[in-house]
Amino acid sequence: MTKGLLIVVSGPSGAGKGTLCKELIRRNNEIELSISCTTRDPRGKEVDGVNYYFISTEEFESRIENNDFLEYAQVYGNYYGTPKWKVLELIDKGVDVILEIDIQGALKVKEEYPDGVFVFVLPPSLQELKERITSRGTDSKDAIIKRMDCAYEELSYAFKYDYAIVNDYVESAVDKIEAIITAEENKANRQKQTINSIREN
Amino acid sequence: MTKGLLIVVSGPSGAGKGTLCKELIRRNNEIELSISCTTRDPRGKEVDGVNYYFISTEEFESRIENNDFLEYAQVYGNYYGTPKWKVLELIDKGVDVILEIDIQGALKVKEEYPDGVFVFVLPPSLQELKERITSRGTDSKDAIIKRMDCAYEELSYAFKYDYAIVNDYVESAVDKIEAIITAEENKANRQKQTINSIREN
Repeated sequence: MTKGLLIVVSGPSGAGKGTLCKELIRRNNEIELSISCTTRDPRGKEVDGVNYYFISTEEFESRIENNDFLEYAQVYGNYYGTPKWKVLELIDKGVDVILEIDIQGALKVKEEYPDGVFVFVLPPSLQELKERITSRGTDSKDAIIKRMDCAYEELSYAFKYDYAIVNDYVESAVDKIEAIITAEENKANRQKQTINSIREN
Repeated sequence: MTKGLLIVVSGPSGAGKGTLCKELIRRNNEIELSISCTTRDPRGKEVDGVNYYFISTEEFESRIENNDFLEYAQVYGNYYGTPKWKVLELIDKGVDVILEIDIQGALKVKEEYPDGVFVFVLPPSLQELKERITSRGTDSKDAIIKRMDCAYEELSYAFKYDYAIVNDYVESAVDKIEAIITAEENKANRQKQTINSIREN
């Protein structure tokens, strides 16, 4: 059985990672979105195993000790992490898994799982990024300035990724991610079984 | 200006390289097929600069000395070679160039131009390959046996390529090559100009 791909979609806040991942999954039912573990309480209509795996701090910390996360971070006293065992279980079954994550997290995942496919989502321009962040209405003026400074720095991390796609139009950006998945599936080193079975029959 | 790609399509005789390249170019007018140089005389309706560049042995040998070929070979006393200057001229203009070539030639091109995108075309099975070679009607029984032995050996070279695609259906195999081209164009290291211009504006 050929393994599935771990596709890591990352980039600065406001670049549109979430929108691209949602559209990718809408088009491709067979791709699974990685669900994070967290120690924070569920909010509103959040469902365990759908939005997050809600686990206790004790359990989270014991899993950290077992090296059970591809990456994790602590935000405002709560843990968030990508469960390695869940991701590897799907990949071993041949399922492609998509992981939407910030840049720091993506770089940690790369250390743990260098076979992943690392895609950096670029905004068409910093001006456009600023407009997107502003129009979300969730950030103060100061916070926006900080985010923009941060984005400027973060763009230089794009070179640490396998691919960098400009998110100008959602449709064409998702077309590119789909092309990347097809190409990666056809990498010679991922076709060993196919090549050997053609030779042997 | 972002450089074009050199896409090297290679594989055993009978795998269908030629058919795939023709269909790829039919769909994508902007992709150029690399035209070889040869010292043999034009046959039938062959046109200089379309089917081949027909040049003298003297010129060919002086170009060999100048390291002007990405690869060359001598077959039945005639030289055949891929003109490096023509290919690089197009690539520098941002044009994607496709090169259909046997395995030995492809491996030489890889030494000269490792930035190329190397695609190995696999037959769906050796049985299917045998049927395709037989139905061409150009080979004797002995020649077919030799070709099949050769193909068995050649398949192991697929691992030296970036990609290996099964040519089961022409349409889907060309879809895969198109996806590979899109993915390669979006490699982070090919997006330096885009990333830097987003940062600077």
